[in-house]
Amino acid sequence: MRAVDLIRKKRDGGTHTAEELRFLIQGYVAGRIPDYQMAAWAMAVYFRGMTDEETAYLTQELVASGETVDLSPIAGVKVDKHSTGGVGDTTTLVLGPLVASAGVPVAKMSGRGLGHTGGTIDKLESIPGFTTELTPQQFVDQVNRIKLAVVGQSAKLTPADKLLYALRDVTATVESIPLIASSVMSKKIAAGADAIVLDVKTGEGAFMREEADAFALARAMVAIGERLGRRTVAVVSDMSQPLGYAVGNALEVREAIDTLAGRGPADLTELCLVLGAHMLVLAGAAPDLEAARAILTRNIETGAALEAFRRFVAAQGGDARIVDEPDRLPQAAHQIPVLAPKRGYVSRVAAREVGECAMLLGAGRETKESAIDLAVGVVLRKKVGDRVEAGEPLAVIHANRPDVDAVAARLVRAFAISDEPAFPPPLVRGRVTEEGEVRG
Amino acid sequence: MRAVDLIRKKRDGGTHTAEELRFLIQGYVAGRIPDYQMAAWAMAVYFRGMTDEETAYLTQELVASGETVDLSPIAGVKVDKHSTGGVGDTTTLVLGPLVASAGVPVAKMSGRGLGHTGGTIDKLESIPGFTTELTPQQFVDQVNRIKLAVVGQSAKLTPADKLLYALRDVTATVESIPLIASSVMSKKIAAGADAIVLDVKTGEGAFMREEADAFALARAMVAIGERLGRRTVAVVSDMSQPLGYAVGNALEVREAIDTLAGRGPADLTELCLVLGAHMLVLAGAAPDLEAARAILTRNIETGAALEAFRRFVAAQGGDARIVDEPDRLPQAAHQIPVLAPKRGYVSRVAAREVGECAMLLGAGRETKESAIDLAVGVVLRKKVGDRVEAGEPLAVIHANRPDVDAVAARLVRAFAISDEPAFPPPLVRGRVTEEGEVRG
Repeated sequence: MRAVDLIRKKRDGGTHTAEELRFLIQGYVAGRIPDYQMAAWAMAVYFRGMTDEETAYLTQELVASGETVDLSPIAGVKVDKHSTGGVGDTTTLVLGPLVASAGVPVAKMSGRGLGHTGGTIDKLESIPGFTTELTPQQFVDQVNRIKLAVVGQSAKLTPADKLLYALRDVTATVESIPLIASSVMSKKIAAGADAIVLDVKTGEGAFMREEADAFALARAMVAIGERLGRRTVAVVSDMSQPLGYAVGNALEVREAIDTLAGRGPADLTELCLVLGAHMLVLAGAAPDLEAARAILTRNIETGAALEAFRRFVAAQGGDARIVDEPDRLPQAAHQIPVLAPKRGYVSRVAAREVGECAMLLGAGRETKESAIDLAVGVVLRKKVGDRVEAGEPLAVIHANRPDVDAVAARLVRAFAISDEPAFPPPLVRGRVTEEGEVRG
Repeated sequence: MRAVDLIRKKRDGGTHTAEELRFLIQGYVAGRIPDYQMAAWAMAVYFRGMTDEETAYLTQELVASGETVDLSPIAGVKVDKHSTGGVGDTTTLVLGPLVASAGVPVAKMSGRGLGHTGGTIDKLESIPGFTTELTPQQFVDQVNRIKLAVVGQSAKLTPADKLLYALRDVTATVESIPLIASSVMSKKIAAGADAIVLDVKTGEGAFMREEADAFALARAMVAIGERLGRRTVAVVSDMSQPLGYAVGNALEVREAIDTLAGRGPADLTELCLVLGAHMLVLAGAAPDLEAARAILTRNIETGAALEAFRRFVAAQGGDARIVDEPDRLPQAAHQIPVLAPKRGYVSRVAAREVGECAMLLGAGRETKESAIDLAVGVVLRKKVGDRVEAGEPLAVIHANRPDVDAVAARLVRAFAISDEPAFPPPLVRGRVTEEGEVRG
């Protein structure tokens, strides 16, 4: 077998066998196949696509390239959750304790990641004392004891995916649905998930701007799960405006606490209930989505969800007093409101622009080496559909430097205000399961 | 400017500016842009193509990447000729002396090349004593004196093309018309041509199997010539069966002598007259194709063409006695006829298969390092349309080893014999000039 022939095959619209994909991935990781051949192949895949079967084989090879996590010492069905990423996406912080409060084990590996704000690990580290460095034994024991633990991703999982992703990043081959799908699913499978709930974002602030692309990605990932024996559900949700109000690390922890306490933003709360209900059903903790939702709603109302968060923070060395006294979280020195230039209805809050503003304030990383400021960010006061008076705050900038004029100017431009009433975009656009697709 | 953005632009169907192509090619040659980015870009070009303008800009950058040959010390319009390659393509050996005999300077750089037989340089080196290592001054003086010289290609021309071609070869991105066109034209322009005649082969033994692709390549190359100020004509000619009868280095030299003497194969003679007439017209040595053809025909009849070859061989140190005593050329130890299994009409002589047989006998190179045997090859006795009796020779194998059963078996399979009369394929399929395209 020669790599050039496999590139040509894909270029000409052919379908790879499992052996061919093994040859490519094993050869690439071993250094026998050079970057330039993988780059040409990835571009051919970009144009020609891959069948569900090829994508599943590729995923399998990515998983096989490294270590895998064995979660069998944890009792119960381990359901993992993954979001394709967006702005102000606080769902993981909420879902972990919420699902754990229903007795379902959540053994989560998470990343720091690049982006407008930090990853879940960064957000959790804004809690004083919190550590995400647990030994494998501590990790398992904690999940068995309190149903929830979050650790940093092991560098030893899916090395082929890391290599391939870094290459795709510099060769304009990131935006390929089978390559994205296999990358995401390989990480979840290597991390030991029995079942997977995916939150596929769509809209201006999402990786998949078009809803049709988001559904296509959802279908590709569910098809992988089906073929590799992991029950998988994908929810397609809105990211045309930020989710919730907070965009920033400590700010999102505070919003997660509010949500677990039953006083969070409506959209964040709703999405957590939808995703959480799927997790409960996949874990066998509820017979159907309705029953699952009832359990989760009740756990928010009774305080059980917030209590699970408190236990989780304490178990990982964090100062649990932040739950009741969130001012103990890092706070920015300056809070500068951004005011509406006119009265009307908010018709657009450009998610990507808001994210860029948070990044400019220091909330996110531009490169892997960037330090991030856990205190800073943006808190929205108005979202799409809200009525606003001229001079009323649209958002509040949390900054550690006084001069934020450029960011403020940019942030105000992220808002569109119309004279006519506007309506919020539908939050949940549909779902994809092994049984098929439901829109709306 | 970032390479990844240019890859994305091409991937998404965008059109590069001259500056962007300069950035890519200069960056690649300087090592600032790595192989993997150029590979992804080349694959994007494969799928998205390039406009004529982009292709001309790219050609310009390939030329600018290295030295260029200054042919201005040579009097007259220097017309170069290039063939896209086929099996038994002896045209350059014939055209050089033929055109020179009409007083038109032919200052040719040629290659060894990979393929079924050697390149023009290899073929000429089968003449005892012949050298292709001339100093630039010797080269210019010889052309001014006898109107013809052939030297090996300088390694200093178009280094960007060499790098890019080597990369394309291992990334399945060779088969892109704008990339092929810019590669060919950059070499001709760097070699100092004022005008260019292209012989674009089509059919089973050609790089462009489909006639439509051959015309597309012809158009792309003529468009480059037009934009870069080199008058360019492309002839599209048949390569479904080998051109002439001989396939092998010394065997083709012998056939070239026969053709210059007026007793060569009809198809080779005709194609040389067509290509040569275009060269004369571009050089201003004849008012039109008809007049040019008359000059060339007369020079074959009077012996002037053969005399030009004799002078050329002597000037480059070769033993000019081979012209009258071709047995002085290297000869293979064994001549083994391949016999027709039945009577009928030859309906097919698969060019590529015949070429493979010559290669297996040692006439061509599989890798740059392969040694080649200048004496061996195949001489056809029958071509498409010929009547053949059972047991009559279809071809003769010239080999330096007695055991050629496998090659003979393969060679006989390259022939198809039908009961119904068959007709030779049209030799010249049309031409492309700056004025447009003529088919047939």
